[in-house]
Amino acid sequence: MINKLVENIKKTRAPIVVGLDPMLDYVPEQVQKKAFQEYGETLEGAAEAIWQFNKAIVDQTYDLIPAVKPQIAMYEQFGIPGLGAFKKTVDYCKEKGLVVIGDVKRGDIGSTSAAYAVGHLGRIKVGGRSYVPFDEDFATVNPYLGSDGVNPFLKVCREEKKGIFVLVKTSNPSSGEFQDQLIDGKPLYELVGAKVAAWGEELMGEEYSYVGAVVGATYPEMGKVLRKIMPKAYILVPGYGAQGGKGKDLAHFFNEDGLGAIVNSSRGIIAAYKQEKYGKYGAEAFAQASRAAVEDMIADIRDAVQLG
Amino acid sequence: MINKLVENIKKTRAPIVVGLDPMLDYVPEQVQKKAFQEYGETLEGAAEAIWQFNKAIVDQTYDLIPAVKPQIAMYEQFGIPGLGAFKKTVDYCKEKGLVVIGDVKRGDIGSTSAAYAVGHLGRIKVGGRSYVPFDEDFATVNPYLGSDGVNPFLKVCREEKKGIFVLVKTSNPSSGEFQDQLIDGKPLYELVGAKVAAWGEELMGEEYSYVGAVVGATYPEMGKVLRKIMPKAYILVPGYGAQGGKGKDLAHFFNEDGLGAIVNSSRGIIAAYKQEKYGKYGAEAFAQASRAAVEDMIADIRDAVQLG
Repeated sequence: MINKLVENIKKTRAPIVVGLDPMLDYVPEQVQKKAFQEYGETLEGAAEAIWQFNKAIVDQTYDLIPAVKPQIAMYEQFGIPGLGAFKKTVDYCKEKGLVVIGDVKRGDIGSTSAAYAVGHLGRIKVGGRSYVPFDEDFATVNPYLGSDGVNPFLKVCREEKKGIFVLVKTSNPSSGEFQDQLIDGKPLYELVGAKVAAWGEELMGEEYSYVGAVVGATYPEMGKVLRKIMPKAYILVPGYGAQGGKGKDLAHFFNEDGLGAIVNSSRGIIAAYKQEKYGKYGAEAFAQASRAAVEDMIADIRDAVQLG
Repeated sequence: MINKLVENIKKTRAPIVVGLDPMLDYVPEQVQKKAFQEYGETLEGAAEAIWQFNKAIVDQTYDLIPAVKPQIAMYEQFGIPGLGAFKKTVDYCKEKGLVVIGDVKRGDIGSTSAAYAVGHLGRIKVGGRSYVPFDEDFATVNPYLGSDGVNPFLKVCREEKKGIFVLVKTSNPSSGEFQDQLIDGKPLYELVGAKVAAWGEELMGEEYSYVGAVVGATYPEMGKVLRKIMPKAYILVPGYGAQGGKGKDLAHFFNEDGLGAIVNSSRGIIAAYKQEKYGKYGAEAFAQASRAAVEDMIADIRDAVQLG
């Protein structure tokens, strides 16, 4: 899947990923109303509303972008029906040729981590048959539990040719509380980055590894260092746009081949119609507003980064 | 909920939690067969099998124990139907008066962590109505992202009188890779432990805080230190039994009041019928084997620990 991701990025010349993180507040009134008419003001109604919202945005943007990143928390908050909308979104995006990064930030140990890996990236046996439960292409993984938590994911990635992005330095203000703590003079995130590079060496695609990393756009200087520590890891970069990261900060995350990083924007794209800048579209044309925001984001990154 | 947990522990004199982590391999043939007859060899069939397995074990043990800890990964691996079995299990255990600790190890930032908190411990608004999506009593939380990831959980805990257990020192062999790294001469897990104590001060129940910690039975010396750093935090102790932790190691995790820790066993209880020791029960009486294993575990802990 890393090969497909790189291929999609080269084809679109757009190293971006649209974060499908639908808060119900983002979903325009007319979409909510229609869903509630069909399913009532229920979890099923909310799930239908976010699924229809996603579908409209994907339909308007899939030709411009290589990948999407649905954040499972936004679906999980609507219980089982919400997770149904997550699954529908994953399947639909894959039909459209997009690479799907499940932002699930799972991480546990041994057989439990294996269960997450199977659930999100692999297949599970039931009697004599096998099923692909959620079937994302990539998943994000939390490294706090060490190699025991990551190895089961590597095993499934090897079998299924799928990938992971390991949290290294997250984009949020308090990420430094633990991640920046110095160990023998070096911050913890560098130690995690070195582990990502080591895990990834065993699992190489054509140009890049199946094992990537998450490094926030809000910490460009740290991105620069991590880029060198993990030369073959794709870096998934959250924190652009709404969280404060700018195009010019992004150059550090890319390699000289113009590859190696993919920048996420969620709210800035999917709720674009709420911004003054895209106000002319109005709530009715929310998906067109998302398309315009995608075009602007691509232009911003092409200005800032020498793409391959 | 911390008050109810303490009350249940005092009532049962059994500071244990049964980990409802059903691998399909653990489910006896006759239970699988019945489920597959009804639903086929499908994800729905697997979900039905693990739900019936859980229900039988809960029916045989609920009068002896204060709490259960379903591990969501084991359900998530069966996709949406699996998560339906998780929800059924949570609801059924609560009906039986048990405290339910959702072992979900979630952790993200800002609105995303808030979505997880709402999904697992809180309630979500849909139009003019509100719903409790998964409705566990406690959830386990991964601290790698710092306070930004934990604060949204604290908010929901305050509103709903629910609690969390933050991963501090996990039971697995590689947990030291990051958690034991020295920062100014002290391991990272102590820094996380100090944060747990600080988060918990703001959210006190009658005797203990709504903010607890996870510390593995496999590291008793570290448990001793952490016990002092977080005197008001309940410690959820995994790693007993199958992972190698013994009764005598557990004393360190308790306070002088005989409270402050709750010890998990999963495989050792739910798959007891597969052990030679409980072989006489056979697969037909798997739930009675679980009851016997619970009784033995309680006796082992009562031997090792001066309970309150």
